[in-house]
Amino acid sequence: MATPQARRGIVLFAHGSRDARWREPVEAVAARVAELAPDAAVRCAYLELATPDLAGAAGELARAGVGSIDIVPLFLGVGKHLREDLPRLLATLQQTHPGLVFRLRPAVGEMPEVVDQLARAALKN
Amino acid sequence: MATPQARRGIVLFAHGSRDARWREPVEAVAARVAELAPDAAVRCAYLELATPDLAGAAGELARAGVGSIDIVPLFLGVGKHLREDLPRLLATLQQTHPGLVFRLRPAVGEMPEVVDQLARAALKN
Repeated sequence: MATPQARRGIVLFAHGSRDARWREPVEAVAARVAELAPDAAVRCAYLELATPDLAGAAGELARAGVGSIDIVPLFLGVGKHLREDLPRLLATLQQTHPGLVFRLRPAVGEMPEVVDQLARAALKN
Repeated sequence: MATPQARRGIVLFAHGSRDARWREPVEAVAARVAELAPDAAVRCAYLELATPDLAGAAGELARAGVGSIDIVPLFLGVGKHLREDLPRLLATLQQTHPGLVFRLRPAVGEMPEVVDQLARAALKN
């Protein structure tokens, strides 16, 4: 009999804003991820000005029993937030959850298929 | 004989950052737009911390002789920047260039096909 495999966790990590409506597209992406991959456990997390933060979202996924967490930065540009803040947050996470595998994915703005889609969206009439 | 039609201008409007590398994905989207629509004139513009600003990019397109400018907010979330700052900037632009047609497009984060693509990107292994 196969050992049941732990669920895969995914955190969509976005900048955050005081404005609750700012989060709607982030939550829409999470809903679409859940539709496309019903076996994955997906959460949103925010760098600042909104909750949960990355530690909160990862803690929730850990309690839900995931075996790994992919962190997907929903950032178009890659600056200090992703090059300095995020690796620091990730190092702390790994210490807090030594049994979990964390995978830091490229920022969506660095993915050629996203760049292509954004260009097509820009041209839509 | 047909009257030659004025070129279509497109401004990709992003937040901006002090970090020059932050702009790379925005410039990659502009390059892809130029590939997909060689007849359009495309420029990047930034709300803050980077140049050109929206007025600068629109002025450049106006001098290049475009007949219209589509403004495409390369923002995933829609907060104060897009709901308050951008309409104000746009009103000023329209006064500066009364002969140009400005079209404010939805933010990319509000487009269902972009949401879908971001979800697929998040699930990529």
